[in-house]
Amino acid sequence: MKGFQIIADFHHCACDDALLQDAARLASTCLEACAHAGLTVVAQAFHQFGDGCPLGGATGAVVLAESHLAVHTWPELRAATLDVYACNVSQDNGKRVQALYNSLYATFQPRQVQKQMLRRGDLNHPFNTVSGS
Amino acid sequence: MKGFQIIADFHHCACDDALLQDAARLASTCLEACAHAGLTVVAQAFHQFGDGCPLGGATGAVVLAESHLAVHTWPELRAATLDVYACNVSQDNGKRVQALYNSLYATFQPRQVQKQMLRRGDLNHPFNTVSGS
Repeated sequence: MKGFQIIADFHHCACDDALLQDAARLASTCLEACAHAGLTVVAQAFHQFGDGCPLGGATGAVVLAESHLAVHTWPELRAATLDVYACNVSQDNGKRVQALYNSLYATFQPRQVQKQMLRRGDLNHPFNTVSGS
Repeated sequence: MKGFQIIADFHHCACDDALLQDAARLASTCLEACAHAGLTVVAQAFHQFGDGCPLGGATGAVVLAESHLAVHTWPELRAATLDVYACNVSQDNGKRVQALYNSLYATFQPRQVQKQMLRRGDLNHPFNTVSGS
């Protein structure tokens, strides 16, 4: 269960509106990014917001053999939250986590990011933020 | 998108084997816990591990109107990782996040926990660990 997680809030995203508003578009973007990063999709669940959300809004999760990706969008704020976690069973997936994050960062084009990186699942290490950018 | 997240690694879980090994059991437990905590399930995705996992193993995510729950189990280690995140749109969901965590903690019965709590989505606050137990 040892692994690496990136948690990020994307603010002021310059991506096209559909990525923030349309669940099908968000899902296809996430699935493509997971595959491109070399991660294995085993299940997915996405939801389109409607009532009470004039601009739509989408939310979802991709369950990976390695752990998960979760993305929630806020079109009225041009924002999204991102969680990418992959554990290391047969190999170190740290670079794949970073590649998936980089891919979604490039797609959402946030002008401001709050980000935290965690090492998980290792009782020999404190459950703390990993230094890095 | 302001919200509250608990990230936890459960080690040495004293729960029954099925919760760690069976995806259907894990899913029903998660869905029941979400509903009991007052959170709104809008989608779900669970996966049963088989090949290469002698003890099984299960993984999944519940997509909430408020954000998500993700749980991955490691039966060979009697361990699970947990992510609970809920944002505050119409109300402060902090207590619901804590209630969901407490419910799953009580169900998995870990003897050791690594836990981190985060405040998210607020550019006026640093993206840092929230103090608390």
